[in-house]
Amino acid sequence: MNTATTSAAALPVDQYMAGVGRAARAAATTMAAASTAAKNNALLALAGQIRAHAGELKARNELDVAAAEQAGLAAPMVDRLRLTDKVIATMAESCEQVAALPDPIGEITNVRRRPTGISVGQMRVPIGVFGMIYESRPNVTIEAASLAIKSGNACVLRGGSEAIHSNLALWKLVQAALTQVGLPSDAVQLVQTTDRAAVGQLITMPQYVDVIIPRGGKGLIERISAEARVPVIKHLDGNCHTYVDEVVDLALAVKVTDNAKTQKYSPCNATESLLVHAAQAAAFLPLIGKVFADKGVEMRCDARAKAILSDVPGAKVVDATEQDWFEEYLAPVIAVKVVDSLDEAIAHINTYGSHHTDAILTTNQPNSMRFIREVDSASVMINASTRFADGFEYGLGAEIGISTDKFHARGPVGLDGLTSMKFVVLGQGEVRS
Amino acid sequence: MNTATTSAAALPVDQYMAGVGRAARAAATTMAAASTAAKNNALLALAGQIRAHAGELKARNELDVAAAEQAGLAAPMVDRLRLTDKVIATMAESCEQVAALPDPIGEITNVRRRPTGISVGQMRVPIGVFGMIYESRPNVTIEAASLAIKSGNACVLRGGSEAIHSNLALWKLVQAALTQVGLPSDAVQLVQTTDRAAVGQLITMPQYVDVIIPRGGKGLIERISAEARVPVIKHLDGNCHTYVDEVVDLALAVKVTDNAKTQKYSPCNATESLLVHAAQAAAFLPLIGKVFADKGVEMRCDARAKAILSDVPGAKVVDATEQDWFEEYLAPVIAVKVVDSLDEAIAHINTYGSHHTDAILTTNQPNSMRFIREVDSASVMINASTRFADGFEYGLGAEIGISTDKFHARGPVGLDGLTSMKFVVLGQGEVRS
Repeated sequence: MNTATTSAAALPVDQYMAGVGRAARAAATTMAAASTAAKNNALLALAGQIRAHAGELKARNELDVAAAEQAGLAAPMVDRLRLTDKVIATMAESCEQVAALPDPIGEITNVRRRPTGISVGQMRVPIGVFGMIYESRPNVTIEAASLAIKSGNACVLRGGSEAIHSNLALWKLVQAALTQVGLPSDAVQLVQTTDRAAVGQLITMPQYVDVIIPRGGKGLIERISAEARVPVIKHLDGNCHTYVDEVVDLALAVKVTDNAKTQKYSPCNATESLLVHAAQAAAFLPLIGKVFADKGVEMRCDARAKAILSDVPGAKVVDATEQDWFEEYLAPVIAVKVVDSLDEAIAHINTYGSHHTDAILTTNQPNSMRFIREVDSASVMINASTRFADGFEYGLGAEIGISTDKFHARGPVGLDGLTSMKFVVLGQGEVRS
Repeated sequence: MNTATTSAAALPVDQYMAGVGRAARAAATTMAAASTAAKNNALLALAGQIRAHAGELKARNELDVAAAEQAGLAAPMVDRLRLTDKVIATMAESCEQVAALPDPIGEITNVRRRPTGISVGQMRVPIGVFGMIYESRPNVTIEAASLAIKSGNACVLRGGSEAIHSNLALWKLVQAALTQVGLPSDAVQLVQTTDRAAVGQLITMPQYVDVIIPRGGKGLIERISAEARVPVIKHLDGNCHTYVDEVVDLALAVKVTDNAKTQKYSPCNATESLLVHAAQAAAFLPLIGKVFADKGVEMRCDARAKAILSDVPGAKVVDATEQDWFEEYLAPVIAVKVVDSLDEAIAHINTYGSHHTDAILTTNQPNSMRFIREVDSASVMINASTRFADGFEYGLGAEIGISTDKFHARGPVGLDGLTSMKFVVLGQGEVRS
């Protein structure tokens, strides 16, 4: 590792990053033309490398963990850093799972004969090179590398400095696996310097990097989006709503709302705001209020919700401020508001939400259709828990991130999000007249 | 018109543009939910408005034409500015054609049942607000407005100052048509000031504008891409290649190459570089050389091509410089190079090309497949003229531009390029475990 970081440090960071980018771009051409078999073999080889070097990985990881503990990092942060036997086994299995997915590359769709005689269709091809910027969890190195290999892209990975020893060790296994099957080891690059200027370079090299995928806090993503000179697959916050409509199956509404809020508090797809139609408030709020009271979920309420919920024994009821309607708590806290109509619910979500995931619970079919059409979010749901917004739950097979943007990929991003569609024209000598 | 420009001029340009953006954003919400019938009726009403006000349009247009002539604008530029009876009739017809297209909005595809019981699919919805920056031809105002209306988007149009009177007159007809059918007239905004600072504002208002579509010279598009804070659907240059492979039907190759180069010289999809496999050079080059000689097409040749083409009576043969391989001539000029292999042809195109449109002419099936897979361009063709790269020829029904980018829309961009796909989850009370 020290030799690696030293060799990186020997160059000015802009020259070093240009070299990384150039190598990735060159490898991308080979990866785009690689056979499905070669790519899958690389993934299986990587699984083997990870299993064979588990001891070494744990030893390198111990350096990061020890440094983090010494630096006084919070225990949950240190935990996320740790490569346990279970995490290592999961990394190896995930490579095998990605190998088992269908190859998205080369798919030709929508081929239609035109009046001129030519046939026009679209072919799915890799984007080229993606840059990934992430923090803490070193297993993201393997996730990103395996998705790059499967999708025929090259990638440049920039992990957090706190995981540098773990990331370097994992990356060496990726390189070994690629070499083992005759694919270019430069297809997966790891930024070997912890110099922060490297990020600034990575996001401003459109000649080498086609898209940036940041994973981390809102601050990091906003900064990268503002400064990037290439497209960014943005995952900002998830202020998800569950809306209980005028007519609803009360038992279903309680079950789904409970799951959407309390099944896990930290994911971005957990519900943060509950909207209840005035016609259901008196019936529904006491029921869900009891669930939340039992689980210690604090309720930040508007006046009408508060009037009802204050009567629930043990309920933690607090007056909501304007800011609460915007909030992504990621905690046992929920904002609660009574609305007078579906229109008001939709307008509230489009105004205060983060365009991530929002659900309507209703028995009214036209209302459900209006909701999914008019709520401007990456995922819109009818009678389901917002917690389902996830690449694996959606059947994408893998997830590189969740996009709250509308351009290119929207919602959970799987392998397809790392591809583009080019037009193919199949002719027999046609000319244009 | 003067009242309009005066009212715009009364505000500082940033405030004026913020007002325009805010109004467009508000209208976009209504447009997204508008019925297919309402949108089509607006388009038919617009066709009627254009026909009913042809005289008035010509009178306003005369102001622009007179000013352009007085300013000494080149005759072709003045011609592009002119709203003739034919151009006016075509604008009206194009609105009717867009009305006749299927509505892309609301389409739900790929709905699949997941093991958890939920059904997951994707719904096509509008992007929101697009900004369009264009020069000269005022009929683009109607093209952009009609595509915005059909796709349920709002738009902010910024035409060239040389066409301001024509654009204002056309825009008033768009507003009248929207009002006539009860859709918000703010859905199509025209920037009423010719202040250049308005463009800088338009491309840096992510809160109001979701994507920018510039149409114009490479300089304009590069400047906008560099400064924009929102995605740009970029159409840079079209250095298109036709590659004549090792085995080929010579008659087909001559016919298609001729068409690709000479059917029209100015479009971006005209072939600018001809690559010929060494095995065909002696047979093919004299044949196409004669065609080019007859049509006065200058040939910028590498040494091997020159040696053959110099023997063609009347051929204008010039030594190619390195720069010629990059050039988009848009003129009766073509670069010609002999290559030794398919690999060399692909590498040349990926190095010097502009990733727009490239064609292989061949009878060899594996070579044709390698070409369309490995050439990294928006359109790749087998045995067809590059001139086919066009939204109408591809059956998209309409074209808002051609993207040489890989992100979001690639190649000719039709209505779908102005939409995004959101995930829809249809449940019956499922929760995540």
